[in-house]
Amino acid sequence: MSTLLNPKRTVAELKELRALTSDDNGAQRVAFTPTWLKAREFLRSRLAALPVEIHDDAAGNTWFTLRGESEKALLIGGHIDSVPNGGWLDGCLNVLAGVEILRRINAQYYGMPPVTVRLVDWADEEGARFGKSLFGASACSGNLDMNEARGLVDKQGIKLPDALKNVGIDFERVKDSGAELKNAAAYIELHIEQGPVLLDLDLPLGAVLGTFGVERHAITFHGQAAHSGSTPMNRRKDAFRAAAKMSSEIYKIAERSGNGVCTIGSCTTKPGIVTSVVEECRITLDQRHLDGAALAKMFREAKAASEKFAKEGNVKVSWERLWQIDPRPFNDDLIALCDEAIRETCGQSHRLPSGPLHDAAEVARAGVPTVMMFVQSLHGISHNKIEDTKEDHLELCVTAFDKLAEKAMRWISHR
Amino acid sequence: MSTLLNPKRTVAELKELRALTSDDNGAQRVAFTPTWLKAREFLRSRLAALPVEIHDDAAGNTWFTLRGESEKALLIGGHIDSVPNGGWLDGCLNVLAGVEILRRINAQYYGMPPVTVRLVDWADEEGARFGKSLFGASACSGNLDMNEARGLVDKQGIKLPDALKNVGIDFERVKDSGAELKNAAAYIELHIEQGPVLLDLDLPLGAVLGTFGVERHAITFHGQAAHSGSTPMNRRKDAFRAAAKMSSEIYKIAERSGNGVCTIGSCTTKPGIVTSVVEECRITLDQRHLDGAALAKMFREAKAASEKFAKEGNVKVSWERLWQIDPRPFNDDLIALCDEAIRETCGQSHRLPSGPLHDAAEVARAGVPTVMMFVQSLHGISHNKIEDTKEDHLELCVTAFDKLAEKAMRWISHR
Repeated sequence: MSTLLNPKRTVAELKELRALTSDDNGAQRVAFTPTWLKAREFLRSRLAALPVEIHDDAAGNTWFTLRGESEKALLIGGHIDSVPNGGWLDGCLNVLAGVEILRRINAQYYGMPPVTVRLVDWADEEGARFGKSLFGASACSGNLDMNEARGLVDKQGIKLPDALKNVGIDFERVKDSGAELKNAAAYIELHIEQGPVLLDLDLPLGAVLGTFGVERHAITFHGQAAHSGSTPMNRRKDAFRAAAKMSSEIYKIAERSGNGVCTIGSCTTKPGIVTSVVEECRITLDQRHLDGAALAKMFREAKAASEKFAKEGNVKVSWERLWQIDPRPFNDDLIALCDEAIRETCGQSHRLPSGPLHDAAEVARAGVPTVMMFVQSLHGISHNKIEDTKEDHLELCVTAFDKLAEKAMRWISHR
Repeated sequence: MSTLLNPKRTVAELKELRALTSDDNGAQRVAFTPTWLKAREFLRSRLAALPVEIHDDAAGNTWFTLRGESEKALLIGGHIDSVPNGGWLDGCLNVLAGVEILRRINAQYYGMPPVTVRLVDWADEEGARFGKSLFGASACSGNLDMNEARGLVDKQGIKLPDALKNVGIDFERVKDSGAELKNAAAYIELHIEQGPVLLDLDLPLGAVLGTFGVERHAITFHGQAAHSGSTPMNRRKDAFRAAAKMSSEIYKIAERSGNGVCTIGSCTTKPGIVTSVVEECRITLDQRHLDGAALAKMFREAKAASEKFAKEGNVKVSWERLWQIDPRPFNDDLIALCDEAIRETCGQSHRLPSGPLHDAAEVARAGVPTVMMFVQSLHGISHNKIEDTKEDHLELCVTAFDKLAEKAMRWISHR
C-alpha cells in the first residue's frame, strides 16, 4: 500500500494550488468567485487520468466517483473554498488528500475496489460571502433553511439565489442533492485542528469525537447610573460588578461539565464613562459541549448564576439567544478505526471534540456514519495567512487518513 | 435675625431665574453664552438696592462687596453657570442664598458689619464648553494650568482665549484675579449634595469635610485571542477574566479604606466578538478619598491586585493615569461651626465628604479656611433637569447657611 501512496505529492499539490489561488494576503478561493472556479478546475484536472465519474449535484457540490464491486459507498469529503485572506490548508488539504487516496485505491484494486469510493468537494463551506456556512453540505443533508437562505444578501446586495444562478445552480432545487447520499455507508474527513490541543500534547494526529453543540447568548445586566464620587459603595446598583462575576463562574461551569467550553467574548458598558457607575452591561456567552444534556446543564447553570449575581448586586438580568445548534457526535466504530489508523502511523493517538463546525457535522446529521481526523495546527490559528502545519505532519496525515479509508472500506464490506 | 432673613424669597428667586434661563430640557446657563450673561444680569439686579461694590475680576468672576469694620473678609461663593440641560439648583442656589444673606447682614448691621462680606460668582465652574471645570476659581487660586488652558477648544473649534476675549477677558492676565483673596479670612459655600447620602439618612443638611482626592486610571489587560470552540479552558489567556476580577476587588479596597469610593465606569473588549477569547480588555478605574495617604493606599492596592490577577490568568497588565488631584480637607473650626449651624436649624447634622469637586476646593487650595454645607438632593441626581430638592429643605438650608455666615464672621473677628 505504502508504495502506491505518495503523501509528498499532496504537499506539492497544496503548494501548487496556493500559487494558483492566493495573493500576498492569503488564499482567495471564496465560493462562487472566479478564483474558486479556478481552484475547482485544478481539482478536476488532478483526477482526469483516473476512471472516476465527475459531476456537480443540484447544490453545486462536485462528486468524483470510483465505482466499486458494491454500490455501498465510502465518502471522503472536504471543501476547496476558503475565507478571503485565508490559510493554505483549511479545506483543500481534505480534498487533495482525498485525491491521493483515490489514486492509491484505484491502483491497488485495478480500478475496482470492494466498495464504491466517492470524493466530494462541498460548495461554500465557509459561508464567507453570504454569512452562512455549510451551504452545500446542509442542502445535501436536507437541513438548509430555505426561507432564511433565500433572503441572504452579500455586501454588494446580490442575493444568494442570483449568485447561484450565475454559476448554473437553481436555488429552489438545491435539496435534490440529497439523492447523492442514497448509498452512503460511511463519511470520513481530514482537517487541520485550528486549535492548540494537539500542539500542546506534541501529537501530530487526533481522532475527532464529534462537533460541539453550541448555546450562544447575550446577557444584559440592568443597574443604575450614579456619580462615581457621591455614591457610597453600598448604595450602588453596579451592572458591571454583576456581569464581571460571570467571568470566573463560567470557568467553573466548564470544568464541572467535563470537556465543555464557555467564552465571554465581548463586554460593553453604558453609559461607559469614567465618572459613572455602570447602568447597563452586556456580555456575550458562547457555550459548547459534545453532549446535548451536558450543554443544556451548562446553559442552565450559567442562567442560574446570572440570576444569583443580579440578586446579590440589586440589579436585573435578561437573556437573549443569539444562536443554538445541537452536538453532532460521530460514529463509535469509525472513531475506533480512526484511532487505530493514527496509532499505526505515528504510535499515539488522542481523541478530541471539534469546536468549529465542519461539513462532517451535516453528513452525520443526515444519518451517515461519520468520523474526522485532525492534524496538528501551528499557532492554533486558521482563517489567516499564517495558518500552518509542519510538512512532515502533513505527510503523516495523508498516510493515516489513507489507512482510515482502507479500514472504513473493510468496515463497510463486513456490515 | 430670623425676621430679617426671608428664605422663601430665595426659593422664589430660584424659580424666577429658572423661568428666565431654562427651556424644556433644563437650565441653559452655560458659561460665556448670552443666557449666562442674562443670568448674571439677574444676579446683579438682586443686589442693586444694597450698598455693595460690584466688579468683575481679571478671570471674569463677579465680586459683590459689603464693606465692614475690618478689611478681613468672609467670602460666600457659588456659580450661576450650569451644564447644558442642567438642573435648577446646582450652583445658583449658592449665589442666591448668598444674596439673601447679604441682605440680612446689611439690614442687621445697618450697612457696616464687623467684617467685610463678599459674595463671589465664579466664572465657568462647570467647564461644560471647554471640558475643564473650575476655570475662574482655579485662575484665582493660582493653580490654573495656563499652557493646557491656552489650548482648550470648544466643539465649534473656538479657543478658550478667543471666547474669553468676546466677553472682555484677557486670557494672559486671568491669574491677576488672585489679588481678590488678599484679605480673605474664610470661605463658605452652600451646594446641593448631588448624591444620596443625606436622603438615605433622612437628614436635610450636612457639613462637608472636604473634597475627595482622585486617582483616575485606565487599566489594560493584554491576553491572547483564541477560538471559543477549539481552545481548552486551561489554555486561555483571557484578558476579560483578569479584568473582571478587579470589579469585586475594588469594593473590598474601598471598604478597607474607610470612606473612600472606587468605580469601574467602562469596559471595552478586543476583538470583542462572540467566537473569540478576549485578547485585550480595558477598564477605567476612578478612586476617591478625603485622605491623601488612604487614597495612595487604595491606588497601590488596586495596582497590586491587577498584577496578581494578571499573573493568575497568564496575561499582562498596564496602567495609564488619566487624571489625579489631591484631597482638599476643609477647615476644622469651620466644619464645627457648620455642624453647629445645622444642629441649631434642624436638630441633627451629619459630616460627609464631597465626591464631586467644587470651587471651594480651589479656595481651600489657596490657603483660605473653607467649609461647605450640603442640602439633600432628591433622586441623588444632578446635571439633569430632574435635579430637585424639597422646598422646605431649600428654606432650611438658607437659614442654616445664614447662621454659618454669622458664626464665621464672629470667628474671623476673634482670631
